[in-house]
Amino acid sequence: NSKLKIFSLNGNQALAEEIASYVGIPLGKCSVKSFSDGEVQINIEESIRGCDVFIVQPTSYPVNEHLMELLIMIDALKRASAATINVLMPYYGYARQDRKARSREPITAKLVADMIEKAGADRVIALDLHAPQIQGFFNIPIDHLMGVPILSDYFLEKEDIDLAETVVVSPDHGGVTRARKMADRLKTPIAIIDKRRPKPNVSEVMNIVGDINGKTAIIIDDIIDTAGTITLAAQALIDKGAKEVYACCTHPVLSGPAYERIEDSAIKELVVTNSIVLPEENRPAKIKQLSVGELLAQAIIRVYEQESVSVLFD
Amino acid sequence: NSKLKIFSLNGNQALAEEIASYVGIPLGKCSVKSFSDGEVQINIEESIRGCDVFIVQPTSYPVNEHLMELLIMIDALKRASAATINVLMPYYGYARQDRKARSREPITAKLVADMIEKAGADRVIALDLHAPQIQGFFNIPIDHLMGVPILSDYFLEKEDIDLAETVVVSPDHGGVTRARKMADRLKTPIAIIDKRRPKPNVSEVMNIVGDINGKTAIIIDDIIDTAGTITLAAQALIDKGAKEVYACCTHPVLSGPAYERIEDSAIKELVVTNSIVLPEENRPAKIKQLSVGELLAQAIIRVYEQESVSVLFD
Ligand SMILES: Nc1ncnc2c1ncn2[C@@H]1O[C@H](COP(=O)(O)O)[C@@H](O)[C@H]1O
Ligand SMILES: Nc1ncnc2c1ncn2[C@@H]1O[C@H](COP(=O)(O)O)[C@@H](O)[C@H]1O
Repeated sequence: NSKLKIFSLNGNQALAEEIASYVGIPLGKCSVKSFSDGEVQINIEESIRGCDVFIVQPTSYPVNEHLMELLIMIDALKRASAATINVLMPYYGYARQDRKARSREPITAKLVADMIEKAGADRVIALDLHAPQIQGFFNIPIDHLMGVPILSDYFLEKEDIDLAETVVVSPDHGGVTRARKMADRLKTPIAIIDKRRPKPNVSEVMNIVGDINGKTAIIIDDIIDTAGTITLAAQALIDKGAKEVYACCTHPVLSGPAYERIEDSAIKELVVTNSIVLPEENRPAKIKQLSVGELLAQAIIRVYEQESVSVLFD
Repeated sequence: NSKLKIFSLNGNQALAEEIASYVGIPLGKCSVKSFSDGEVQINIEESIRGCDVFIVQPTSYPVNEHLMELLIMIDALKRASAATINVLMPYYGYARQDRKARSREPITAKLVADMIEKAGADRVIALDLHAPQIQGFFNIPIDHLMGVPILSDYFLEKEDIDLAETVVVSPDHGGVTRARKMADRLKTPIAIIDKRRPKPNVSEVMNIVGDINGKTAIIIDDIIDTAGTITLAAQALIDKGAKEVYACCTHPVLSGPAYERIEDSAIKELVVTNSIVLPEENRPAKIKQLSVGELLAQAIIRVYEQESVSVLFD
C-alpha cells in the first residue's frame, strides 16, 4: 500500500483535524492563502509522490473560493505525482441546481462534478448529497455517506424525549425517503408537510399528512439554508397540536436570516452536523452540532485499505 | 448565419456595453446574482437557441466569483442549445501560474483552460495573455489580441513627448519582446531593466541595459499588480538620468498597495486599458485608461462573420 496523507484546505480545518486524529496521522502540511489580487495560492509543503492523498474540503461558504481551492489542490497533487487523489467533500456546494427546472438553467451540480473530475480527482467521498442522482454525474467512483444514523443516534439517546410519542416529519415531498429512514431507526411513524397553493398569488397552505396531535415532532431535512421552510413548518406543527418540535439536518448552511429565524422559532432544538463550520457570532444556543469526524475517518481508512465503504451506510 | 448575441456577466459591464454598441446590438438580457448562501445564480432572460453567443467576462477580482459565473453561464448556454459559445476574456485570471516553477505547484492557467473547455466553450478570444503559450492550453480555437497597438497609438499621438528622445523600457527580461513591439511602432530604441541579486540576502540591484540618459522612458508590461516592480523601475530610471518616466500596461490589476505606490512614484502617467474595471476610490489622477472596446467588438464581428481575426493583430 502507498502512504496515506490527509490535507485540509480552508473549508473546515477543525473537522479535518478531527478526522486525521481518528485516522491516527497528522494532517499534511500545506498553506492555502490568497495572492494580493485574490487568486488562490497553495503551497504543498511536504512530498506526496506516490501517496494516497485525501483532501478534506466542504464547498461551503464562500463556495467559489472553496471550490477553486479544491480544484487547484487537485491540479497541484496530480502534477506532483500523487498515486491517488481522493476528495472528501463533507458538503457539496452547488448541489441544488441538479436538474433543469426552468428554461436556460444551468446544472451546476454536474458542472462541479465535471470540474473535479477534469482537475484530476480519482475518487470522491460525499455526505448526504442533495440528490443521490449526483453520484451519476461522476465517472469516477463516489462513496455516498449518510447523516441519518448520526442524527438518529442522538435522538435515540436523548432522555427527555418519549419516542413512543414521537413522529418524524418530512418538510416536503422530496424528503420522505430520508424521514422514513430516520423513523425506522427511532421506530416512530412519519408525517409529511404538504404545501399547497390553493390559487396563484394566494399564500401557501401548510397541510399536515399524518398524526402529530400531542406528539413530539422531529423535522428532518438534508440542508437548512435560510431556515424559512423549517421554521414555518415548526410553527404549523405547533399550530396543529404538536407538543414540541425538534429539527435536524446534515448540512447547516444557515445563510442570511437563518440564525434569527431559528432563535425566534417554535423549534426547541436544532440538531446539525459539523459538515459546515458555523460562525460563533449570534449563534442560537439551541443549535446542537454533532460530529461526522469519526464516520469520515472510517470512510478514509476503508477506501485506503481498499475495503467496501458501504458497511458505513447503516 | 445564426443570430448574434452578446451577454455580459459581472466582470466588466461598462466594457460589454461599449462592445455591444460598436457591434450595433443591445446586450442580451440576463441576471447574474448570488443566492443567499453565496452560490452564483444566473438567469438568461431571452431565448438563445441556435444563436452564436459571445460572453464578455474578464476573470479579474474577485476572480473566483467571476470564473464561476463564466463556467455556469457556459453550462447554461450549452444546455439551452446555443449554436456556438464564444468566450471573450479581456483579462485572463490565474495566468501567472503557467508553469511549474517550484515543486508541487499547480498550473492554474491550464486548469482554467480545462474548466472553460469542459464547461462547453467553443472558442476563446483573449487579450495579452501573460504567456502566449497559454493558447496551447486550449484544444478549441483561441484568438489572441494585443494591447500594444492601442497603447502605442496613445504615445504616438501624445504631443508633449518627443519620440526622437524616447526609449521604451522592459521592466524585466520576460517583457523584451513586448517592449520591442512597442518600440517598433514608436520608432525608438529599447532598454531593459536587468535585476540582479549580487549575493543571497542582499537586496536586488536594478541595472539598466541601454541608453536612457536625458530621455523620456516608457516602461511597458502586460500586468501591473501591486505596482512594486514598476514603481521601483521608474525610480531607478530617474536615478540613472532619465528625464521623465511613463508606464503602461494592458491589464491594470492594481491590487493591495498599488494605488498608493503609483501616486507616490516617479511615474508621470500610467496608461492602461479598460480590460479590468478600476475602482474610483483613491484612484490616482495620473492613471489614464484607454478603451479596448472597439478592438474587441471588431474581433466579435470577425469571428461571427467567420473572417480571420489575425488582421487585428497589427
Ligand atoms: N444556493 C441556492 N440557494 C437557494 N436556492 C437554490 C440554490 N441553488 C439552487 N436553488 C434553487 O432551489 C431549487 C431546488 O431545490 P429543491 O427543490 O429543494 O431541490 C431550484 O429551484 C433552484 O433554482
Ligand atoms: N496572482 C498572483 N499574484 C502574485 N504572484 C503570482 C500570482 N500568480 C502567480 N504568481 C507568481 O508569479 C510568478 C510568475 O510571474 P512571472 O515570472 O511574471 O511569469 C510565479 O512565481 C508565481 O508563483
